[in-house]
Amino acid sequence: MQRTLVKDAHNATAAADAILLQGWVRTRRDSKAFSFVELNDGSCLKGLQIVVDASLPDYAQVARAHTGASIEVRGKLVASQGQGQKWEVVATEFKVVGEADGTYPLQKKGHTLEFLREIAHLRPRSNLFGAVFRVRSRLAYAVHQFFQERSFHYVHTPIITASDAEGAGDMFRVTTLDLENPPRGEDKHVDHTKDFFGKKTFLTVSGQLEGEIFACALSNIYTFGPTFRAENSNTSRHAAEFWMIEPEMAFCDLQGDMDLAEAFVKHLIRDVRTHCAADLEFFSKFVDKDLLPRLDFVLEKPFVRCSYTEAVEILEKSGKTWEHPISWGANLQAEHERYLTEEHFKCPVTVYNYPRAIKAFYMRVTDGCAPDRQTVAAMDLLVPGIGEIIGGSQREERLELLREGMALHHLDEKAYWWYLDLRRYGTVPHAGFGLGFERMLMFVTGIGNIRDVIPFARTPGTADF
Amino acid sequence: MQRTLVKDAHNATAAADAILLQGWVRTRRDSKAFSFVELNDGSCLKGLQIVVDASLPDYAQVARAHTGASIEVRGKLVASQGQGQKWEVVATEFKVVGEADGTYPLQKKGHTLEFLREIAHLRPRSNLFGAVFRVRSRLAYAVHQFFQERSFHYVHTPIITASDAEGAGDMFRVTTLDLENPPRGEDKHVDHTKDFFGKKTFLTVSGQLEGEIFACALSNIYTFGPTFRAENSNTSRHAAEFWMIEPEMAFCDLQGDMDLAEAFVKHLIRDVRTHCAADLEFFSKFVDKDLLPRLDFVLEKPFVRCSYTEAVEILEKSGKTWEHPISWGANLQAEHERYLTEEHFKCPVTVYNYPRAIKAFYMRVTDGCAPDRQTVAAMDLLVPGIGEIIGGSQREERLELLREGMALHHLDEKAYWWYLDLRRYGTVPHAGFGLGFERMLMFVTGIGNIRDVIPFARTPGTADF
Repeated sequence: MQRTLVKDAHNATAAADAILLQGWVRTRRDSKAFSFVELNDGSCLKGLQIVVDASLPDYAQVARAHTGASIEVRGKLVASQGQGQKWEVVATEFKVVGEADGTYPLQKKGHTLEFLREIAHLRPRSNLFGAVFRVRSRLAYAVHQFFQERSFHYVHTPIITASDAEGAGDMFRVTTLDLENPPRGEDKHVDHTKDFFGKKTFLTVSGQLEGEIFACALSNIYTFGPTFRAENSNTSRHAAEFWMIEPEMAFCDLQGDMDLAEAFVKHLIRDVRTHCAADLEFFSKFVDKDLLPRLDFVLEKPFVRCSYTEAVEILEKSGKTWEHPISWGANLQAEHERYLTEEHFKCPVTVYNYPRAIKAFYMRVTDGCAPDRQTVAAMDLLVPGIGEIIGGSQREERLELLREGMALHHLDEKAYWWYLDLRRYGTVPHAGFGLGFERMLMFVTGIGNIRDVIPFARTPGTADF
Repeated sequence: MQRTLVKDAHNATAAADAILLQGWVRTRRDSKAFSFVELNDGSCLKGLQIVVDASLPDYAQVARAHTGASIEVRGKLVASQGQGQKWEVVATEFKVVGEADGTYPLQKKGHTLEFLREIAHLRPRSNLFGAVFRVRSRLAYAVHQFFQERSFHYVHTPIITASDAEGAGDMFRVTTLDLENPPRGEDKHVDHTKDFFGKKTFLTVSGQLEGEIFACALSNIYTFGPTFRAENSNTSRHAAEFWMIEPEMAFCDLQGDMDLAEAFVKHLIRDVRTHCAADLEFFSKFVDKDLLPRLDFVLEKPFVRCSYTEAVEILEKSGKTWEHPISWGANLQAEHERYLTEEHFKCPVTVYNYPRAIKAFYMRVTDGCAPDRQTVAAMDLLVPGIGEIIGGSQREERLELLREGMALHHLDEKAYWWYLDLRRYGTVPHAGFGLGFERMLMFVTGIGNIRDVIPFARTPGTADF
């Protein structure tokens, strides 16, 4: 007999005479004549109630079916008498596959998130983390659907890179050299030509530059892969290893880039609202009471667009005292971003056209700015409660201005010969952005710590499992 | 005006008075009264013919539209007089966006694959590599569709791992220590507790063990991410960085595992046959004349299943002289695999139940074997022309037998405490497999070198772009 997933049993349109269920015991209640076992198989939040009659030949098995045990049940799917469930299963066969004794760490409830991180190999069996990782899976699929349906091509940009100057942050070194006793040259320095790739290599901090290569050939592309930062920041929003989505579009300017970013964020929210309704309701009940109104708010409201210069004026006129003083030329800090989205505009805001000096070398110089207030076509999408969720820009497609930007940032043109070639041969206006997948997951689940939306978080001092 | 992709223009159902196209010049032919420009935007293999009348005010631009230049064209979509194309565009405006002069390396044709690897930043603009990377994108999407439609959850297993004993191959070290002068302890050895994660860390060779964690919670899961081997093998089939798909199913045995593997391979082939028809025809014309018959053959034929013991008997009785002698207990080599699929069975073959001694510690000991011929529930799916494309197994779910396997492989139980926990608490029969994404791409494109199906290949001595 084919296994039926609990999800499909809940959605059955008719009773069934014979059904096979396999999963794990969440709870059990025994009465004189019956036992009620809640079986969960991870296919959905809600378990299925199994009724085991004490007269069943297998009934002795039930006493071994503690929380966490794996079980196999054959029976009839019948309309449930109980509240809040349409169907239940009356067992005709009940078998314990694998026991779980009293040492099983995931007993009923009351565990802290910190403790659950220590048993990250078991926490996906809890209601909370089952829901988190179902939403994570669905959200990833929604990313692919969004782009594939718009004729974007998925590109796997390299994880190992020889470029140590992508500028987005500190990098991890990748090596096969013996750290105890690395080969050294005549000058006594480590001889990196003896390393696996014949030179120093690192873990990527962004696939953007390689993504531009593909946009300048296939027009519309996106990446979705792991990205790394070797920064020693132990915050609730930073991890050393995280997943990022980076679309890139040829023949596209900042306007088109902002349009895509907004459509993308709305699509992702709409998709999980539809496909993960029960999991999201769970989060709104137990994690963040404002979650669903906030998501719906973002769906319904048009996003505000506000230039950096306007944003600074708003902040200066706010009458607020800032921890980080704000004036034209300074970076926006979390407190400023929150004020803009949560107090001033009360909706998601895309801030665009930032000062050239505080942004990356590859961003396009905005035409027609006053020389003392030179800006680049960058944009950040800010959402209430989280702050920056997307950062993007139109890229500098003019060879001479790109070289100027590289000089300003003290970058070696030789290392970027191929990046400059894109501007030498058939250059086109192009733009893109990056969305941190875990930030988006935190936004749609209300979970406050990035460690709790990643299967096995890598943070300073931690690489368990 | 909204841009129309060439792909959509080719599929138009009616002529159009005004259309905007943006892309790159592939070829140009000038006559007295007209120029014919082939515009390609990467959305599909076939370019769109643009007819520019010499009387057009913009006509002077055409002289600058060399191969590789980017152009923007407005015009009418009209039925084409030419052969082999339904539509063409009669330009009303023609603009060169970015020129490409005579130094553009991708002139018409006749480049070797080796040369194109050196200009991997431009090769996606060629017919061949445009097709490869469109198929790569589609194949990746087909992977997600296959699993998501079957209620499998996508899991991001960690890339950085502290486990150096996964046993699948040599590993890259990940570190933030200063190689010139690493911190050393009192014993003069490098002090790894000072590294970013407080211990030695590596790039993953497989997400399987972590995948099992999630299968033992969500029932059916799959991974799809980058994987690494620090092996110094310079072959056409090995890369240091490649992508792998690893499904894992709870309550599943080897039989179910083989069923899924076969259905998966067929699904992927069927999907690209349908969605990448033009690109596949191009490969069958210019790369591998037998490609389409071979793909159709795999689609139509049921796969043969053959135990390892039977396979060895077939090989011993074949009368062939083998480079690698074969007898019970030896690993199957490429020559054996090819004989089985290409000569003996003449179809894809799944070989199962391998000797325990030559397989990994986590594979399930097959019940009822003679003690001197102990086997494990492993399987390899072999296809004609490529050999092994999938390797998988049922996992040992019995705690004591798993510990025995670890002892046989000299593994430290302490490092696997969480893996053993899965067998302590609600253990279930489970199984899974791994598919090398690039191998599959080579199979569906006929491309013979793994370097030509990866955007930017990482191989010994090479980490360019």
